Amino acid sequence: MELFDQFKAIQKKQKAFALVLGIASWDSNTEAPKDCFPYRSEMLSIISGESFSIGTSDTYKEVVNGLMERLDELDDMHQKEIKKAKKNLDKIAKIPKEEYIEYSKLVNMAQRVWEDAKEQDDYELFKPYLQKIIQAKKKQVAYRGDTDNPYNVLLDDFEEGMDMEQYDAFFDTIKKDLVPFVKEILDQKTNRDETFITTMYPKAKQKEFVEYLMNVFNYNFDRGLLKESVHPFTWNTHSKDVRFTVRYLENYVFSSIFAGIHELGHAIYEQQVDESLDMTNLKSGASMGMHESQSRFYENIIGRSKVFWEVHYDHLKTLFPKQLNDVDIEMFYEGINRVEESMTRVEADELTYPLHILIRYEIERMIFNDNIDLDTLPDIWNQKMREYLNIEPKTDAEGILQDVHWSGGMFGYFPTYALGSAYAAQIYYTMINDIDFEALIKDNNIEKINQWLQEKIHRFGSSKKPREILKDVTGEDFNPKYYVRFLKEKYSEIYLK
Amino acid sequence: MELFDQFKAIQKKQKAFALVLGIASWDSNTEAPKDCFPYRSEMLSIISGESFSIGTSDTYKEVVNGLMERLDELDDMHQKEIKKAKKNLDKIAKIPKEEYIEYSKLVNMAQRVWEDAKEQDDYELFKPYLQKIIQAKKKQVAYRGDTDNPYNVLLDDFEEGMDMEQYDAFFDTIKKDLVPFVKEILDQKTNRDETFITTMYPKAKQKEFVEYLMNVFNYNFDRGLLKESVHPFTWNTHSKDVRFTVRYLENYVFSSIFAGIHELGHAIYEQQVDESLDMTNLKSGASMGMHESQSRFYENIIGRSKVFWEVHYDHLKTLFPKQLNDVDIEMFYEGINRVEESMTRVEADELTYPLHILIRYEIERMIFNDNIDLDTLPDIWNQKMREYLNIEPKTDAEGILQDVHWSGGMFGYFPTYALGSAYAAQIYYTMINDIDFEALIKDNNIEKINQWLQEKIHRFGSSKKPREILKDVTGEDFNPKYYVRFLKEKYSEIYLK
Repeated sequence: MELFDQFKAIQKKQKAFALVLGIASWDSNTEAPKDCFPYRSEMLSIISGESFSIGTSDTYKEVVNGLMERLDELDDMHQKEIKKAKKNLDKIAKIPKEEYIEYSKLVNMAQRVWEDAKEQDDYELFKPYLQKIIQAKKKQVAYRGDTDNPYNVLLDDFEEGMDMEQYDAFFDTIKKDLVPFVKEILDQKTNRDETFITTMYPKAKQKEFVEYLMNVFNYNFDRGLLKESVHPFTWNTHSKDVRFTVRYLENYVFSSIFAGIHELGHAIYEQQVDESLDMTNLKSGASMGMHESQSRFYENIIGRSKVFWEVHYDHLKTLFPKQLNDVDIEMFYEGINRVEESMTRVEADELTYPLHILIRYEIERMIFNDNIDLDTLPDIWNQKMREYLNIEPKTDAEGILQDVHWSGGMFGYFPTYALGSAYAAQIYYTMINDIDFEALIKDNNIEKINQWLQEKIHRFGSSKKPREILKDVTGEDFNPKYYVRFLKEKYSEIYLK
Repeated sequence: MELFDQFKAIQKKQKAFALVLGIASWDSNTEAPKDCFPYRSEMLSIISGESFSIGTSDTYKEVVNGLMERLDELDDMHQKEIKKAKKNLDKIAKIPKEEYIEYSKLVNMAQRVWEDAKEQDDYELFKPYLQKIIQAKKKQVAYRGDTDNPYNVLLDDFEEGMDMEQYDAFFDTIKKDLVPFVKEILDQKTNRDETFITTMYPKAKQKEFVEYLMNVFNYNFDRGLLKESVHPFTWNTHSKDVRFTVRYLENYVFSSIFAGIHELGHAIYEQQVDESLDMTNLKSGASMGMHESQSRFYENIIGRSKVFWEVHYDHLKTLFPKQLNDVDIEMFYEGINRVEESMTRVEADELTYPLHILIRYEIERMIFNDNIDLDTLPDIWNQKMREYLNIEPKTDAEGILQDVHWSGGMFGYFPTYALGSAYAAQIYYTMINDIDFEALIKDNNIEKINQWLQEKIHRFGSSKKPREILKDVTGEDFNPKYYVRFLKEKYSEIYLK
């Protein structure tokens, strides 16, 4: 069909723009020198503008809308491409180009202001930007015609099919079942010697271990690379270029190890997407939540299991003989699963992590649906920390200002982190009925686990919706009980035995 | 003037495209993973095509031609911008877009074929591509309407104001004055112990020394970075983002040291261009020859001088105490200025280097103006090597196939390498009349030499033509006698004393 060819031609151009903007962003986040940014920002806003123009042009709208009317003439995969294109188009089609560029500049600037505000512990500095971003987000949602429940729109943007009703149910389970359990665990004061955790581990050896892990997890070195950056992240343009970063804290070796395995989870997902999708808009992982489920699966379910370290702890010890001389595998396993009152999300352990997300979810809901006064946010944050986590931030820097997300306009993103862990647990209980998970890890045969995940999840990219994948894999719809079960079983065994 | 504003708006868009293509190219040349290239090439050809369309659109042509008619209404700097834009426009205006894209694909492919051909020592493999590229270059020249002497057009593209007549005169001087001198030097067989040159120098320590050199030469770390790549190069998008690479050969430490200083010369030039030019088409160095003059000045005139090592040799020794234990500064100085029959240009010493260029110049002239049969090239190459350098390649890989340039269509580029060294010498003899060159190096005050070069050369970017700069700096037009004088003085002192 000629119309479909037209669609593919425009889409290819969009993908070309996405590629160069993506490479520029990788460069900015990993090595670009300090002084280059004013010029670079100005130039990149031109390229973003060009890309925006292509993706909102009248021709493109006519093509996509025309194809929507003739969907039944297309095969299944092409229908999916068009539906996704239509959905993306509707998100931005009514935003005037100038407003789009203004918004890009606003979040660029807000991220720099947020950095300063965090450093200076000055919420007042950031507040006006937060205000503007929230207004802009509300306006963007209004352009789409759906204003009854603006937060629902944002939630769906990050995780198709999820809304407040479902998240409320999910977080209610967490509040009811997990918060009391966490308090019980936090009350178990242990006398364990955990000084090895914060001993000095030289950076070069840490890097060597992360590279070892890349081999263990069967990362494809011809399709990506490992680099260093302030915040670890995974980056990809298509299945054959999937890179990730870690950072090396010399006094906290767990950071590079577990951020490394976490990002490996994201990266292996992307490397295993079927390459026939590279040239489509279905090329990447199914959703934020599904992506996070994979990174958490690798990081927590594999990477923090005892069986994994029974195989690999000796190698770690050969790299750090002095640091780990007096640490047996039992101590090490307990160390990597230590539960504590943590002030910041990114440093939180597996068990307390969802409570950090719960707080953010509740606050975002207030911002978008209750028009809450921004002056009250720091106090609300602190109260919730006390309520759920027995701990209260002393400064806004370690409280309300700790995360970058809001300065980038990413409201609705946080809940997917907890959702991902819950997906992971649900997938795990299916997997162990299907393959001998423990035996494979013992045999250092993670390749087989990768293959199982590729077959069931990864290869589809976003040609299947996250909930559809979950149902096809596990035989049931999303059910948070597996997540609670996993955490209770694991941490009871460690702390309450 | 509204027309000029229109010009600036289009130019800004072109610069934005140049930026993202530049970043992509940096990534491709330093770290992009092997498997990403098919997708990447296809996508980048779309972005190049977009950029080409903007730079050859009817609107842009009308704007530039309109401004050419009203030049006298513009100030001097704006006139220069328009003239340069007009010149660049005329180079590509008549090439059909499809042909332009085809040509980009051809050279992309040819570079890969050249790599294989070199590796397999198979000139026949590369020949058909060489043939196609030469035909395409001739066609491109013909589009510009000047076909009497196509090589002159290419020479002028790389070095404005130079033509065969002038290069013939330059290379005649080299042939007449330098070739006999080189043979005299090559006949001086020395019994020097030079094993330290090819001893093992660990990579990490080499890197440390290159970073030390970056400080010595006052490289601005906020405006760039050092990285590693197979072929060293300097890369810049504007004066505030100027990066360079070296490679570390563990059995040849001179490679990272002198390629490092060489690239530092290119980089400091770009970092010192007046930042008011960043937003114009005059932002970068004046020409290939002038650029090479600066890299050669830093590498050879400063970096291979005895006085430089009198200051810095001790530091090198602290990094490599074992390797340099028995090497006094005299031996080291002679080592870094060793003259020998070398097969390949990139490994040639300062003295024999221009003879390698002479060979390439004579062959390019035959290709473009004498329609020479490509089958005969390997033999011609080898004969000339024997004639000028007393040495004959045994394979095409170390002969005609050694350089990448022709596979990228860069005919007319080579001569600027020798020209740059000659410019450098001419500038040097002016500089030493003006400032105390040796004393500044002894005081480790290269900053002052940088300032002199910035004031006289760097800050102008390409707002002055290379020959204009040379005349303003040295008080005379290009004169190769300084180059010959410099080499004879230096190498007589080392070899014939």
